[in-house]
Amino acid sequence: MSGRLDIVGLGPGRQGLVTPEASAALEAAAAIYGYGPYLDRVPLRADQARHPSDNRVELDRARAALGAAETGRVAMVSGGDPGVFAMAAAVCEAVELGPEAWRAIEIVVHPGITAMLALAARIGAPLGHDFCAISLSDNLKPWPLVERRLAAAAQAGFAMALYNPISRARPWQLGAGLDILRAHLPGETPVIFGRAVMREDEEIRFTTLAEADPAQADMSTCLIIGTAETRVIARPALPPLVYTPRRAPA
Amino acid sequence: MSGRLDIVGLGPGRQGLVTPEASAALEAAAAIYGYGPYLDRVPLRADQARHPSDNRVELDRARAALGAAETGRVAMVSGGDPGVFAMAAAVCEAVELGPEAWRAIEIVVHPGITAMLALAARIGAPLGHDFCAISLSDNLKPWPLVERRLAAAAQAGFAMALYNPISRARPWQLGAGLDILRAHLPGETPVIFGRAVMREDEEIRFTTLAEADPAQADMSTCLIIGTAETRVIARPALPPLVYTPRRAPA
Repeated sequence: MSGRLDIVGLGPGRQGLVTPEASAALEAAAAIYGYGPYLDRVPLRADQARHPSDNRVELDRARAALGAAETGRVAMVSGGDPGVFAMAAAVCEAVELGPEAWRAIEIVVHPGITAMLALAARIGAPLGHDFCAISLSDNLKPWPLVERRLAAAAQAGFAMALYNPISRARPWQLGAGLDILRAHLPGETPVIFGRAVMREDEEIRFTTLAEADPAQADMSTCLIIGTAETRVIARPALPPLVYTPRRAPA
Repeated sequence: MSGRLDIVGLGPGRQGLVTPEASAALEAAAAIYGYGPYLDRVPLRADQARHPSDNRVELDRARAALGAAETGRVAMVSGGDPGVFAMAAAVCEAVELGPEAWRAIEIVVHPGITAMLALAARIGAPLGHDFCAISLSDNLKPWPLVERRLAAAAQAGFAMALYNPISRARPWQLGAGLDILRAHLPGETPVIFGRAVMREDEEIRFTTLAEADPAQADMSTCLIIGTAETRVIARPALPPLVYTPRRAPA
Protein backbone atom coordinates (compact mmCIF):
# COMPACT_ATOMS: atom_id res chain seq x y z
CA MET A 1 0.00 0.00 0.00
CA SER A 2 1.28 3.44 -0.89
CA GLY A 3 0.63 6.45 1.26
CA ARG A 4 0.61 10.16 0.88
CA LEU A 5 2.81 13.08 1.83
CA ASP A 6 1.28 16.57 2.11
CA ILE A 7 3.85 19.37 2.05
CA VAL A 8 2.10 22.24 3.77
CA GLY A 9 2.88 25.95 3.51
CA LEU A 10 2.23 27.70 6.82
CA GLY A 11 2.72 31.22 5.41
CA PRO A 12 4.21 34.01 7.55
CA GLY A 13 3.10 32.51 10.85
CA ARG A 14 -0.36 33.54 11.91
CA GLN A 15 -3.30 31.20 11.56
CA GLY A 16 -5.43 33.60 9.52
CA LEU A 17 -2.94 33.35 6.68
CA VAL A 18 -2.99 29.54 6.37
CA THR A 19 -5.34 28.36 3.63
CA PRO A 20 -8.26 26.12 4.64
CA GLU A 21 -6.86 23.33 2.43
CA ALA A 22 -3.50 23.50 4.18
CA SER A 23 -5.21 23.31 7.58
CA ALA A 24 -7.30 20.34 6.45
CA ALA A 25 -4.18 18.51 5.26
CA LEU A 26 -2.59 18.94 8.69
CA GLU A 27 -5.70 17.64 10.38
CA ALA A 28 -5.77 14.53 8.19
CA ALA A 29 -2.15 13.57 8.88
CA ALA A 30 -1.21 10.73 11.22
CA ALA A 31 2.27 12.20 11.68
CA ILE A 32 3.79 15.64 11.08
CA TYR A 33 7.43 16.38 10.26
CA GLY A 34 9.16 19.75 10.13
CA TYR A 35 11.71 22.21 11.43
CA GLY A 36 10.93 22.61 15.14
CA PRO A 37 9.76 26.25 15.19
CA TYR A 38 7.36 25.62 12.27
CA LEU A 39 6.00 22.48 13.88
CA ASP A 40 5.35 24.52 17.03
CA ARG A 41 2.81 26.56 15.07
CA VAL A 42 0.58 23.51 14.58
CA PRO A 43 -1.92 22.87 17.43
CA LEU A 44 -0.94 19.80 19.46
CA ARG A 45 -3.14 16.73 19.12
CA ALA A 46 -2.61 13.60 21.17
CA ASP A 47 -3.28 11.20 18.29
CA GLN A 48 -0.75 12.81 15.92
CA ALA A 49 2.94 11.93 16.07
CA ARG A 50 5.26 14.94 15.82
CA HIS A 51 8.80 14.74 14.47
CA PRO A 52 10.63 18.05 14.88
CA SER A 53 14.08 18.41 13.37
CA ASP A 54 16.85 20.98 13.29
CA ASN A 55 17.47 23.62 10.68
CA ARG A 56 19.68 22.66 7.72
CA VAL A 57 18.89 18.94 7.73
CA GLU A 58 16.30 19.27 4.99
CA LEU A 59 17.25 16.13 3.11
CA ASP A 60 17.25 13.93 6.23
CA ARG A 61 13.89 15.36 7.23
CA ALA A 62 12.50 14.71 3.74
CA ARG A 63 13.73 11.11 3.82
CA ALA A 64 12.19 10.46 7.22
CA ALA A 65 8.83 11.80 6.07
CA LEU A 66 8.91 9.82 2.82
CA GLY A 67 9.79 6.67 4.71
CA ALA A 68 6.76 7.11 6.93
CA ALA A 69 4.57 8.03 3.95
CA GLU A 70 5.25 4.66 2.30
CA THR A 71 2.42 3.20 4.37
CA GLY A 72 0.50 6.11 5.85
CA ARG A 73 -0.61 9.70 5.59
CA VAL A 74 2.07 12.14 6.63
CA ALA A 75 2.45 15.93 6.55
CA MET A 76 5.60 18.03 6.28
CA VAL A 77 5.30 21.66 7.38
CA SER A 78 7.19 24.47 5.73
CA GLY A 79 7.33 28.19 6.47
CA GLY A 80 5.93 30.51 3.80
CA ASP A 81 5.37 28.62 0.55
CA PRO A 82 6.96 25.15 0.31
CA GLY A 83 8.11 25.89 -3.24
CA VAL A 84 10.10 29.07 -2.45
CA PHE A 85 13.44 28.29 -0.78
CA ALA A 86 11.68 25.71 1.36
CA MET A 87 10.86 22.03 1.72
CA ALA A 88 9.28 21.02 -1.62
CA ALA A 89 12.61 20.93 -3.50
CA ALA A 90 14.25 18.86 -0.75
CA VAL A 91 11.42 16.32 -0.89
CA CYS A 92 11.68 16.06 -4.68
CA GLU A 93 15.45 15.60 -4.39
CA ALA A 94 14.94 12.83 -1.81
CA VAL A 95 12.46 11.10 -4.14
CA GLU A 96 14.88 11.25 -7.05
CA LEU A 97 17.76 9.83 -5.00
CA GLY A 98 15.64 7.40 -2.99
CA PRO A 99 14.15 3.93 -3.45
CA GLU A 100 11.78 3.21 -6.33
CA ALA A 101 8.90 2.78 -3.84
CA TRP A 102 8.95 6.51 -3.07
CA ARG A 103 7.86 7.26 -6.66
CA ALA A 104 4.51 5.65 -5.84
CA ILE A 105 3.82 7.97 -2.89
CA GLU A 106 1.20 10.62 -3.64
CA ILE A 107 2.82 13.99 -2.98
CA VAL A 108 0.55 17.02 -2.58
CA VAL A 109 2.05 20.48 -2.15
CA HIS A 110 -0.17 23.08 -0.44
CA PRO A 111 0.97 26.57 -1.42
CA GLY A 112 1.29 29.30 1.20
CA ILE A 113 2.03 33.01 1.50
CA THR A 114 5.76 33.39 0.94
CA ALA A 115 7.75 36.10 2.77
CA MET A 116 8.24 38.46 -0.18
CA LEU A 117 4.52 38.57 -0.96
CA ALA A 118 3.66 39.14 2.71
CA LEU A 119 6.13 42.04 2.88
CA ALA A 120 4.92 43.42 -0.45
CA ALA A 121 1.33 43.35 0.83
CA ARG A 122 2.30 45.26 3.98
CA ILE A 123 3.80 48.19 2.07
CA GLY A 124 1.87 48.52 -1.19
CA ALA A 125 2.96 46.84 -4.42
CA PRO A 126 6.76 46.96 -4.67
CA LEU A 127 6.75 43.76 -6.78
CA GLY A 128 3.99 45.14 -9.01
CA HIS A 129 6.07 44.63 -12.13
CA ASP A 130 8.57 42.00 -13.31
CA PHE A 131 10.58 40.78 -10.33
CA CYS A 132 12.86 38.05 -9.09
CA ALA A 133 13.57 36.18 -5.88
CA ILE A 134 17.18 35.49 -4.96
CA SER A 135 18.56 33.62 -1.96
CA LEU A 136 21.77 35.21 -0.67
CA SER A 137 22.83 31.96 0.97
CA ASP A 138 26.00 30.52 -0.50
CA ASN A 139 25.67 27.28 1.44
CA LEU A 140 24.54 25.40 -1.67
CA LYS A 141 25.72 27.65 -4.50
CA PRO A 142 28.93 29.55 -5.16
CA TRP A 143 28.94 33.21 -4.14
CA PRO A 144 30.04 34.44 -7.61
CA LEU A 145 26.77 33.04 -9.00
CA VAL A 146 24.82 35.14 -6.50
CA GLU A 147 26.79 38.21 -7.59
CA ARG A 148 26.12 37.48 -11.25
CA ARG A 149 22.39 37.12 -10.62
CA LEU A 150 22.17 40.34 -8.61
CA ALA A 151 23.95 42.26 -11.35
CA ALA A 152 21.81 40.72 -14.11
CA ALA A 153 18.57 41.47 -12.25
CA ALA A 154 19.58 45.07 -11.56
CA GLN A 155 20.70 45.71 -15.14
CA ALA A 156 17.48 44.26 -16.56
CA GLY A 157 15.27 46.38 -14.28
CA PHE A 158 13.74 43.64 -12.15
CA ALA A 159 12.42 44.46 -8.68
CA MET A 160 13.99 41.98 -6.28
CA ALA A 161 13.25 40.05 -3.13
CA LEU A 162 16.28 38.83 -1.20
CA TYR A 163 15.81 35.73 0.97
CA ASN A 164 18.27 34.40 3.57
CA PRO A 165 20.16 37.71 3.64
CA ILE A 166 22.36 37.01 6.64
CA SER A 167 23.21 34.49 9.37
CA ARG A 168 25.95 33.97 11.92
CA ALA A 169 27.81 31.78 9.43
CA ARG A 170 27.21 34.24 6.55
CA PRO A 171 27.88 37.70 8.00
CA TRP A 172 29.26 39.62 4.97
CA GLN A 173 27.14 38.46 2.04
CA LEU A 174 24.35 41.04 2.34
CA GLY A 175 26.84 43.91 2.45
CA ALA A 176 28.64 42.56 -0.60
CA GLY A 177 25.33 42.05 -2.41
CA LEU A 178 24.17 45.61 -1.70
CA ASP A 179 27.48 46.92 -3.05
CA ILE A 180 26.87 45.11 -6.32
CA LEU A 181 23.39 46.57 -6.59
CA ARG A 182 24.81 50.06 -5.90
CA ALA A 183 27.01 49.69 -8.97
CA HIS A 184 23.92 49.30 -11.17
CA LEU A 185 21.02 51.17 -9.52
CA PRO A 186 20.49 54.77 -8.33
CA GLY A 187 21.28 55.44 -4.65
CA GLU A 188 17.69 56.55 -4.07
CA THR A 189 16.27 53.15 -5.13
CA PRO A 190 13.81 52.12 -2.38
CA VAL A 191 14.94 49.28 -0.12
CA ILE A 192 12.65 47.72 2.47
CA PHE A 193 13.73 45.45 5.32
CA GLY A 194 10.87 43.26 6.55
CA ARG A 195 11.52 41.31 9.74
CA ALA A 196 9.02 38.74 11.06
CA VAL A 197 6.48 40.17 8.62
CA MET A 198 2.84 39.65 9.62
CA ARG A 199 3.88 38.26 13.00
CA GLU A 200 3.55 39.96 16.37
CA ASP A 201 7.12 41.19 16.42
CA GLU A 202 7.02 42.55 12.85
CA GLU A 203 9.49 45.34 12.02
CA ILE A 204 9.46 47.09 8.66
CA ARG A 205 12.13 49.67 7.76
CA PHE A 206 12.03 51.91 4.70
CA THR A 207 15.37 53.08 3.39
CA THR A 208 17.30 53.59 0.16
CA LEU A 209 20.02 51.62 -1.56
CA ALA A 210 22.55 54.30 -0.62
CA GLU A 211 21.60 54.14 3.08
CA ALA A 212 20.79 50.44 3.47
CA ASP A 213 22.65 48.99 6.46
CA PRO A 214 23.19 45.19 6.47
CA ALA A 215 23.22 45.26 10.28
CA GLN A 216 19.46 45.85 10.19
CA ALA A 217 18.85 42.35 8.80
CA ASP A 218 18.74 39.05 10.63
CA MET A 219 17.69 35.48 9.82
CA SER A 220 13.99 36.45 9.94
CA THR A 221 14.41 39.28 7.43
CA CYS A 222 13.35 39.45 3.79
CA LEU A 223 14.46 42.46 1.74
CA ILE A 224 12.75 44.05 -1.22
CA ILE A 225 14.80 46.17 -3.60
CA GLY A 226 12.85 48.44 -5.93
CA THR A 227 13.72 49.47 -9.46
CA ALA A 228 14.65 52.90 -10.80
CA GLU A 229 10.89 53.39 -11.37
CA THR A 230 9.65 52.35 -7.91
CA ARG A 231 7.62 55.11 -6.23
CA VAL A 232 7.27 55.99 -2.55
CA ILE A 233 4.04 57.81 -1.66
CA ALA A 234 4.30 59.80 1.56
CA ARG A 235 1.12 59.80 3.66
CA PRO A 236 0.67 62.23 6.57
CA ALA A 237 -0.87 59.85 9.11
CA LEU A 238 0.09 56.44 7.69
CA PRO A 239 3.28 54.63 6.64
CA PRO A 240 4.38 55.28 3.05
CA LEU A 241 3.03 53.23 0.16
CA VAL A 242 5.74 51.75 -2.07
CA TYR A 243 4.90 50.50 -5.53
CA THR A 244 6.55 49.60 -8.81
CA PRO A 245 4.36 50.95 -11.62
CA ARG A 246 2.74 48.64 -14.13
CA ARG A 247 3.99 50.93 -16.88
CA ALA A 248 7.72 50.69 -17.75
CA PRO A 249 9.80 52.96 -19.98
CA ALA A 250 11.93 51.57 -22.81
CA MET B 1 -14.04 60.47 8.49
CA SER B 2 -11.63 58.27 6.56
CA GLY B 3 -12.48 54.76 5.54
CA ARG B 4 -10.65 51.67 4.54
CA LEU B 5 -9.92 49.73 1.38
CA ASP B 6 -9.06 46.02 1.59
CA ILE B 7 -7.39 44.65 -1.53
CA VAL B 8 -8.11 40.94 -1.39
CA GLY B 9 -6.25 38.13 -3.14
CA LEU B 10 -8.64 35.34 -4.16
CA GLY B 11 -5.87 32.94 -5.20
CA PRO B 12 -6.38 30.48 -8.08
CA GLY B 13 -10.15 30.32 -7.70
CA ARG B 14 -11.34 27.73 -5.25
CA GLN B 15 -12.52 28.67 -1.79
CA GLY B 16 -10.12 26.34 0.05
CA LEU B 17 -7.21 28.43 -1.18
CA VAL B 18 -8.47 31.79 0.11
CA THR B 19 -6.92 32.70 3.46
CA PRO B 20 -9.29 33.15 6.42
CA GLU B 21 -8.16 36.80 6.74
CA ALA B 22 -9.03 37.48 3.10
CA SER B 23 -12.48 35.91 3.59
CA ALA B 24 -13.04 37.99 6.73
CA ALA B 25 -12.13 41.19 4.88
CA LEU B 26 -14.71 40.42 2.21
CA GLU B 27 -17.37 39.78 4.85
CA ALA B 28 -16.66 43.11 6.55
CA ALA B 29 -16.97 45.18 3.39
CA ALA B 30 -20.03 47.31 2.65
CA ALA B 31 -19.20 47.30 -1.05
CA ILE B 32 -16.99 45.11 -3.27
CA TYR B 33 -15.27 46.18 -6.48
CA GLY B 34 -13.50 44.02 -9.02
CA TYR B 35 -13.20 42.53 -12.48
CA GLY B 36 -16.52 40.75 -13.11
CA PRO B 37 -15.33 37.12 -13.18
CA TYR B 38 -13.40 37.58 -9.90
CA LEU B 39 -16.36 39.26 -8.24
CA ASP B 40 -18.50 36.29 -9.30
CA ARG B 41 -16.40 34.09 -7.00
CA VAL B 42 -17.60 35.97 -3.91
CA PRO B 43 -20.87 34.64 -2.41
CA LEU B 44 -23.75 37.08 -3.02
CA ARG B 45 -25.09 38.95 0.01
CA ALA B 46 -28.09 41.27 -0.20
CA ASP B 47 -26.60 43.94 2.07
CA GLN B 48 -23.34 44.27 0.10
CA ALA B 49 -23.11 46.48 -2.98
CA ARG B 50 -21.25 44.89 -5.91
CA HIS B 51 -19.46 46.88 -8.58
CA PRO B 52 -18.17 44.63 -11.36
CA SER B 53 -16.01 46.17 -14.06
CA ASP B 54 -14.39 45.11 -17.32
CA ASN B 55 -10.88 43.86 -17.84
CA ARG B 56 -8.20 46.46 -18.57
CA VAL B 57 -9.84 49.37 -16.74
CA GLU B 58 -7.75 48.84 -13.61
CA LEU B 59 -7.14 52.52 -12.91
CA ASP B 60 -10.80 53.48 -13.25
CA ARG B 61 -11.76 50.58 -10.99
CA ALA B 62 -9.16 51.63 -8.43
CA ARG B 63 -10.43 55.23 -8.46
CA ALA B 64 -14.03 54.15 -7.98
CA ALA B 65 -13.10 51.99 -5.00
CA LEU B 66 -10.95 54.70 -3.42
CA GLY B 67 -13.75 57.23 -3.86
CA ALA B 68 -16.14 54.94 -2.01
CA ALA B 69 -13.50 54.17 0.64
CA GLU B 70 -13.26 57.86 1.60
CA THR B 71 -16.22 57.34 3.89
CA GLY B 72 -16.75 53.60 4.25
CA ARG B 73 -15.28 50.13 4.25
CA VAL B 74 -14.73 48.80 0.77
CA ALA B 75 -13.06 45.70 -0.69
CA MET B 76 -11.40 45.22 -4.06
CA VAL B 77 -10.99 41.64 -5.26
CA SER B 78 -8.02 40.47 -7.28
CA GLY B 79 -7.16 37.09 -8.77
CA GLY B 80 -4.11 35.33 -7.35
CA ASP B 81 -2.05 37.72 -5.22
CA PRO B 82 -2.94 41.42 -5.52
CA GLY B 83 0.75 42.32 -5.64
CA VAL B 84 1.71 40.14 -8.62
CA PHE B 85 0.54 41.64 -11.93
CA ALA B 86 -2.74 42.51 -10.27
CA MET B 87 -4.72 45.27 -8.53
CA ALA B 88 -2.44 46.51 -5.73
CA ALA B 89 -0.15 48.48 -8.07
CA ALA B 90 -3.14 50.10 -9.80
CA VAL B 91 -4.57 51.21 -6.44
CA CYS B 92 -1.21 52.68 -5.38
CA GLU B 93 -0.96 54.51 -8.69
CA ALA B 94 -4.46 55.93 -8.24
CA VAL B 95 -3.54 57.12 -4.74
CA GLU B 96 -0.42 58.86 -6.01
CA LEU B 97 -2.28 60.62 -8.83
CA GLY B 98 -5.47 61.25 -6.82
CA PRO B 99 -6.75 63.79 -4.30
CA GLU B 100 -4.89 64.34 -1.01
CA ALA B 101 -7.83 62.79 0.89
CA TRP B 102 -7.01 59.37 -0.53
CA ARG B 103 -3.71 59.38 1.38
CA ALA B 104 -5.72 59.16 4.59
CA ILE B 105 -7.54 55.98 3.56
CA GLU B 106 -6.31 52.87 5.35
CA ILE B 107 -5.24 50.40 2.66
CA VAL B 108 -4.81 46.74 3.64
CA VAL B 109 -3.53 44.22 1.10
CA HIS B 110 -4.42 40.58 1.76
CA PRO B 111 -1.95 38.31 -0.02
CA GLY B 112 -3.12 35.29 -1.97
CA ILE B 113 -1.76 32.29 -3.85
CA THR B 114 -0.41 33.62 -7.14
CA ALA B 115 -0.59 31.52 -10.34
CA MET B 116 3.09 30.58 -10.54
CA LEU B 117 3.12 29.22 -6.98
CA ALA B 118 -0.09 27.28 -7.57
CA LEU B 119 1.39 25.72 -10.71
CA ALA B 120 4.69 25.04 -8.97
CA ALA B 121 2.84 23.27 -6.15
CA ARG B 122 0.97 21.05 -8.62
CA ILE B 123 4.14 19.70 -10.25
CA GLY B 124 6.84 19.64 -7.54
CA ALA B 125 9.26 22.50 -6.97
CA PRO B 126 10.26 24.01 -10.33
CA LEU B 127 10.86 27.40 -8.65
CA GLY B 128 12.88 25.78 -5.87
CA HIS B 129 15.87 28.00 -6.59
CA ASP B 130 16.34 31.64 -7.66
CA PHE B 131 13.55 32.58 -10.05
CA CYS B 132 11.78 35.49 -11.67
CA ALA B 133 8.30 36.42 -12.78
CA ILE B 134 7.87 38.19 -16.10
CA SER B 135 4.69 39.45 -17.75
CA LEU B 136 4.77 38.97 -21.52
CA SER B 137 2.20 41.72 -22.01
CA ASP B 138 3.53 44.68 -23.94
CA ASN B 139 0.43 46.77 -23.31
CA LEU B 140 2.25 48.88 -20.72
CA LYS B 141 5.91 48.26 -21.52
CA PRO B 142 7.87 48.09 -24.77
CA TRP B 143 8.43 44.63 -26.23
CA PRO B 144 12.23 45.07 -26.46
CA LEU B 145 12.30 45.38 -22.65
CA VAL B 146 10.53 42.02 -22.34
CA GLU B 147 13.11 40.50 -24.69
CA ARG B 148 15.96 41.97 -22.68
CA ARG B 149 14.58 40.58 -19.43
CA LEU B 150 14.02 37.09 -20.86
CA ALA B 151 17.59 36.99 -22.16
CA ALA B 152 19.02 38.30 -18.88
CA ALA B 153 17.05 35.79 -16.80
CA ALA B 154 18.09 32.86 -19.02
CA GLN B 155 21.76 33.87 -19.06
CA ALA B 156 21.84 34.23 -15.27
CA GLY B 157 20.23 30.82 -14.69
CA PHE B 158 16.92 31.94 -13.15
CA ALA B 159 13.91 29.66 -13.33
CA MET B 160 11.04 31.69 -14.77
CA ALA B 161 7.31 32.11 -14.55
CA LEU B 162 5.67 33.81 -17.52
CA TYR B 163 2.39 35.63 -16.87
CA ASN B 164 -0.01 36.97 -19.52
CA PRO B 165 1.60 34.86 -22.24
CA ILE B 166 -0.95 35.45 -24.97
CA SER B 167 -4.25 37.13 -25.85
CA ARG B 168 -6.23 37.91 -28.98
CA ALA B 169 -4.53 41.30 -29.17
CA ARG B 170 -1.06 39.82 -28.46
CA PRO B 171 -0.86 36.64 -30.56
CA TRP B 172 2.89 36.47 -31.40
CA GLN B 173 4.65 37.50 -28.19
CA LEU B 174 4.90 34.06 -26.58
CA GLY B 175 6.42 32.54 -29.71
CA ALA B 176 8.95 35.36 -29.92
CA GLY B 177 9.74 35.01 -26.23
CA LEU B 178 10.33 31.25 -26.49
CA ASP B 179 12.68 31.86 -29.42
CA ILE B 180 14.76 34.19 -27.26
CA LEU B 181 14.93 31.59 -24.50
CA ARG B 182 15.99 28.94 -27.06
CA ALA B 183 19.02 31.08 -27.92
CA HIS B 184 20.24 30.85 -24.31
CA LEU B 185 18.97 27.56 -22.83
CA PRO B 186 19.25 23.87 -23.84
CA GLY B 187 16.39 22.51 -25.93
CA GLU B 188 15.63 19.93 -23.23
CA THR B 189 14.94 22.61 -20.59
CA PRO B 190 11.59 21.68 -18.96
CA VAL B 191 8.64 23.91 -19.84
CA ILE B 192 5.26 23.56 -18.15
CA PHE B 193 2.01 25.07 -19.36
CA GLY B 194 -0.52 25.45 -16.52
CA ARG B 195 -4.04 26.41 -17.56
CA ALA B 196 -6.73 27.24 -14.97
CA VAL B 197 -4.45 25.73 -12.34
CA MET B 198 -6.23 24.41 -9.23
CA ARG B 199 -9.63 25.02 -10.84
CA GLU B 200 -12.04 22.38 -12.16
CA ASP B 201 -10.91 22.75 -15.74
CA GLU B 202 -7.19 22.61 -14.91
CA GLU B 203 -4.85 21.44 -17.71
CA ILE B 204 -1.15 20.92 -17.12
CA ARG B 205 1.21 20.04 -19.99
CA PHE B 206 4.83 19.00 -19.59
CA THR B 207 7.10 19.72 -22.53
CA THR B 208 10.57 21.04 -23.35
CA LEU B 209 11.83 24.35 -24.63
CA ALA B 210 12.54 22.76 -28.03
CA GLU B 211 8.99 21.42 -28.31
CA ALA B 212 6.99 24.16 -26.59
CA ASP B 213 4.09 25.25 -28.79
CA PRO B 214 2.65 28.74 -28.15
CA ALA B 215 -0.74 27.56 -29.42
CA GLN B 216 -1.13 25.56 -26.19
CA ALA B 217 -1.39 28.76 -24.13
CA ASP B 218 -4.39 31.01 -23.64
CA MET B 219 -5.28 33.91 -21.35
CA SER B 220 -5.70 31.56 -18.36
CA THR B 221 -2.24 30.03 -18.77
CA CYS B 222 0.90 30.57 -16.71
CA LEU B 223 4.15 29.04 -17.96
CA ILE B 224 7.11 27.88 -15.94
CA ILE B 225 10.49 27.58 -17.66
CA GLY B 226 13.11 25.55 -15.82
CA THR B 227 16.86 26.08 -15.78
CA ALA B 228 19.61 23.90 -17.21
CA GLU B 229 19.62 22.15 -13.80
CA THR B 230 15.86 21.50 -13.50
CA ARG B 231 15.09 17.79 -13.06
CA VAL B 232 12.08 15.76 -14.20
CA ILE B 233 11.40 12.62 -12.13
CA ALA B 234 9.37 10.03 -14.02
CA ARG B 235 6.89 8.12 -11.85
CA PRO B 236 5.18 4.95 -13.12
CA ALA B 237 1.66 5.62 -11.84
CA LEU B 238 1.74 9.37 -11.20
CA PRO B 239 2.55 12.54 -13.18
CA PRO B 240 6.23 13.51 -13.20
CA LEU B 241 7.75 15.61 -10.44
CA VAL B 242 9.65 18.66 -11.70
CA TYR B 243 12.10 20.46 -9.45
CA THR B 244 14.99 22.89 -9.59
CA PRO B 245 17.63 21.68 -7.13
CA ARG B 246 18.65 23.81 -4.18
CA ARG B 247 22.27 23.16 -5.10
CA ALA B 248 23.64 25.12 -8.08
CA PRO B 249 26.94 24.67 -9.91
CA ALA B 250 29.30 27.61 -10.49
